[in-house]
Amino acid sequence: MARTVRRPGRRPGKQDTREVILAAAREAFAERGYDGASIRQIAGSAGVDPALVHHYFGTKDQLFLDALQVPIDPTTLIPGAVAGDRRGVGERLIRTVLRVWDSAAGGPAAAMIRSAVGNELIARMLREFIARRIFKRVAAELDLDPAEAPLRVSLLATQIAGLIMVRYIIKVEPFASADPELIVALVGPTVQRYLIDPLPALPDHPPGDHP
Amino acid sequence: MARTVRRPGRRPGKQDTREVILAAAREAFAERGYDGASIRQIAGSAGVDPALVHHYFGTKDQLFLDALQVPIDPTTLIPGAVAGDRRGVGERLIRTVLRVWDSAAGGPAAAMIRSAVGNELIARMLREFIARRIFKRVAAELDLDPAEAPLRVSLLATQIAGLIMVRYIIKVEPFASADPELIVALVGPTVQRYLIDPLPALPDHPPGDHP
Repeated sequence: MARTVRRPGRRPGKQDTREVILAAAREAFAERGYDGASIRQIAGSAGVDPALVHHYFGTKDQLFLDALQVPIDPTTLIPGAVAGDRRGVGERLIRTVLRVWDSAAGGPAAAMIRSAVGNELIARMLREFIARRIFKRVAAELDLDPAEAPLRVSLLATQIAGLIMVRYIIKVEPFASADPELIVALVGPTVQRYLIDPLPALPDHPPGDHP
Repeated sequence: MARTVRRPGRRPGKQDTREVILAAAREAFAERGYDGASIRQIAGSAGVDPALVHHYFGTKDQLFLDALQVPIDPTTLIPGAVAGDRRGVGERLIRTVLRVWDSAAGGPAAAMIRSAVGNELIARMLREFIARRIFKRVAAELDLDPAEAPLRVSLLATQIAGLIMVRYIIKVEPFASADPELIVALVGPTVQRYLIDPLPALPDHPPGDHP
């Protein structure tokens, strides 16, 4: 509540306009998804010209990342982690995750996850972010079979989300202070199996066909 | 806020006393850990007789579970999941997790996880719960090598925490609505590897020996 109290006579400044645009963007992305939301409509909700949104945030991509308060765009790290021998891709992905989360970006990233867990609006944006940006980029870089890609990348998400929860959010020992290369050796093969190895035979009723 | 409004003349009742004891218990377990906290000291903080704490909550174990608002005590499910052929233990553990979280207990369990992520007091209690109760019980039931058990069970925690995050908290598709038996077939072997299969060769410097 205190955030909306202004000193008498003070005009809305650049910072306020940015915040108004970001709030409108969070609303729009959560309600309509990444593809459904438009800069024009976000500008309309914020009561500013679309050109000002482009001026402050550049692309819709960047506006999305800023609205979600993601400290580092993970999609920029994916090509480097995936490039090279296909057999080592699981280990390289885990090594990249640990490098980012063990760095100064880890604190803001943990704050973003905490927000997503406690706030349905942020959770919807994070879901959108994972599905539209991370999943698609991983599937494209690895040239995954489109029929298997959604399941493979959501399996990847379970292992990486769990690693982040146990090491950085809940901080369960001995995992929280374990040597990063030990974690790479232990968890890398799981990611390798989820992304690259043949999937196990599926049950004889199709996925989703349950009460 | 509305919860604390009382009708005039109403005396604190059984419900209030229970809540006061639970608040004192959360404080004590988070500050001193499960072993360090005592019923006597919790009763003292709550301003009640220790006999009343025993009367309301039975054992320290049950007080701990009630303070953490865990809807089902997972430790009671572990022996059933672990019993039987050692080769199927990974699949049976995942099947048990899915059965509980897909049931009516899933909602309250998700609420507990959300609290733990947003609240350091609850996070510390959850850490304690995982380490003292779940980890020890799994290690004992499986008769794990004590030198490897802490690492094996925290690896188990990463995969189960990630499964819960992706399926029940963030709800990423197609995993959120995937057939439970498909998830058992995909994730079970990971848990099997973490708990039972030989661990990979470790890096040549000891765990924890990093900057």
